[in-house]
Amino acid sequence: MRPVAVAGIGKTSFGAFPDKDLRGLAIEAAQACLADAGVLPGQVDSFYLGNFAGPSFVGQNHLAPYIAAELGVLGVPATRFEAACASAGAAFAHAWSAVASGMHEAALVVGVEKMTSQTTAKVTEILAAAGDVQGEGKAGATFPALFAMIARRHMYQYGTTREHLAAVAVKNHANGALNPQAHMRKVITMEQALAGKPVAEPLTVYDCSLVSDGAAAVLLMAADRAKARNPRVLACAQTSDHLALERKADITSLPAVRLAAERAYKMAGLGPDDIDLAEVHDCFTIAEIIAMEELGFCARGQGGPYVASGVTGLGGAKPVNTSGGLKSKGHPVGATGVAQICDLVLQMRGEAGARQIAKKRIGLAQNLGGSGATCVVTILGA
Amino acid sequence: MRPVAVAGIGKTSFGAFPDKDLRGLAIEAAQACLADAGVLPGQVDSFYLGNFAGPSFVGQNHLAPYIAAELGVLGVPATRFEAACASAGAAFAHAWSAVASGMHEAALVVGVEKMTSQTTAKVTEILAAAGDVQGEGKAGATFPALFAMIARRHMYQYGTTREHLAAVAVKNHANGALNPQAHMRKVITMEQALAGKPVAEPLTVYDCSLVSDGAAAVLLMAADRAKARNPRVLACAQTSDHLALERKADITSLPAVRLAAERAYKMAGLGPDDIDLAEVHDCFTIAEIIAMEELGFCARGQGGPYVASGVTGLGGAKPVNTSGGLKSKGHPVGATGVAQICDLVLQMRGEAGARQIAKKRIGLAQNLGGSGATCVVTILGA
Repeated sequence: MRPVAVAGIGKTSFGAFPDKDLRGLAIEAAQACLADAGVLPGQVDSFYLGNFAGPSFVGQNHLAPYIAAELGVLGVPATRFEAACASAGAAFAHAWSAVASGMHEAALVVGVEKMTSQTTAKVTEILAAAGDVQGEGKAGATFPALFAMIARRHMYQYGTTREHLAAVAVKNHANGALNPQAHMRKVITMEQALAGKPVAEPLTVYDCSLVSDGAAAVLLMAADRAKARNPRVLACAQTSDHLALERKADITSLPAVRLAAERAYKMAGLGPDDIDLAEVHDCFTIAEIIAMEELGFCARGQGGPYVASGVTGLGGAKPVNTSGGLKSKGHPVGATGVAQICDLVLQMRGEAGARQIAKKRIGLAQNLGGSGATCVVTILGA
Repeated sequence: MRPVAVAGIGKTSFGAFPDKDLRGLAIEAAQACLADAGVLPGQVDSFYLGNFAGPSFVGQNHLAPYIAAELGVLGVPATRFEAACASAGAAFAHAWSAVASGMHEAALVVGVEKMTSQTTAKVTEILAAAGDVQGEGKAGATFPALFAMIARRHMYQYGTTREHLAAVAVKNHANGALNPQAHMRKVITMEQALAGKPVAEPLTVYDCSLVSDGAAAVLLMAADRAKARNPRVLACAQTSDHLALERKADITSLPAVRLAAERAYKMAGLGPDDIDLAEVHDCFTIAEIIAMEELGFCARGQGGPYVASGVTGLGGAKPVNTSGGLKSKGHPVGATGVAQICDLVLQMRGEAGARQIAKKRIGLAQNLGGSGATCVVTILGA
């Protein structure tokens, strides 16, 4: 394996864009990425698309060559990767593997989702297909309901409170307000977060990530061929688990996250204490709390007090989701895993503007699929 | 790169199976494959799923861990690959790359599609999403219509006849009748093929592949760890092109096929004359005729007379689709690319029963996505 760098990054703003279609968003991000890397479309030798449900959201399938060819990336392997909300993470993991092994020289990874053209009811139904439809789905469980059960059990088992959940929302909204590309740039108070409209008890609208349109792209190249300012991929690990919560011994745990983190730490020769900043998958506030535990940032069950302590804030010792996270930056499902990488790189290059942090040598991204059946953990280093 | 072998194969029968669900089919094929290889689920270290449109056909997404976990393959990367009708080919290509590079030791590739639970109209609509929906789709072009235009132009440009098209159908039905796992085991005469019910002029029902349920699986391992009877992967190349026919200079050509074949021949150090047998993507009879040309088996425009000469029959010098092809074996879209590999391996091991051929040292599989936007060409050798 040879060292691989994130040689370029590009993102669209996240939000509701009735005038932009899926392919247009993907190409906007990809072109920004190639310009950032100083690489032409014709130099790209493999194309990896993260997309969860384009066929359901916009009615177009076979999306990888559909986007690649329009971008001017022709003749090379162009494949769509689907792993629910970790689709872009899975695409990234396979692209990294291909460049690390020398199979490819310039792998373009694009993540995209166009969600807001559907009604909320339809979006909820499409997202529910990332869970066990014949089991959980038939029982009426939407994704907010699944994570509500997880949150309720975490509260029961560990004493986690509504205030702990709300602390994640307040922090991520504060960060997102500083991110010009975030979907919802709105600072909220603890009082507002606690008084949010209920979605699935104990989760309110402020505990749920946003339904967004958007795209993100990264170019992976051998480190010695990328510009010096760019971080390297120190590790990348993808793991899997059962879809259905009922198959788990403990629904407050995310074994796929713990396993991916363990493998990534081992590959990088690092531990949780070495991580300077992280972008984690806060599809719901409880997911960020559990991520803190599974990534080893705090002990099991202590995620609530950990996030409430302020340590993961912009000024804290371990900033988490400085981008605003899925909660405030937005969550175009198939784009999220690559967007996390882009946001880490912005920080590590010192280009994060008003939300720039000082200690930024080692960054970690954690991308989750469904209620934990897929996880991808990536560690970047200067 | 190290040599990789197809260490095990497994297939379900193809057909209409109202009592079998998507996951059950996938697991049946995977278990047969692991038993064939003598490998346990716990030894599989990466899982590659080819599936075109499970979410649309059966309403379940996030299919890779959904299947893998139930099979007992847990914790490892489990990803769904989508590239239209070449979804399984794309999954195979990425799995081969991962084992060849040493990233993984035992890569299980499963292809599956469950199509017959939908109405024909709905199936046609789902398949059409593999083409350019905003262009061709809005103009009303289904896939039979797209390939009918290609056939009509091939007839005009090269003098290809209805009899040439029918010769493909007659041959593939004769072969499929000898395949106990084929969907339609029915010998047809030239007269029957010519008198088929029209679907899209000049294509009749006998020119169109079948809508099927089914799954296929292969296990890829380093060649020195696989049983000696198993063939090696000498080459694998995936390519891409525009989705829309209108973006092509000549709709009778499939540039992605030619490019993939050129790359695969180069990688294997072989040429078209070295191929003993081939499984090619006869989604429509015209597609097999053009495949003959793009793979270099005959000159451009000569595919019609070439197939009519009998050279590609079971007793010919270059047997093509000894399995019966998509026409008679069936075409569960996401399974096809892996099923082709299984069928080559059966012949190369001498286990093809009544359809066994004698000269079987080098086999080629060609898997096409859409009307040519994706192609995967794989060459196996003893």
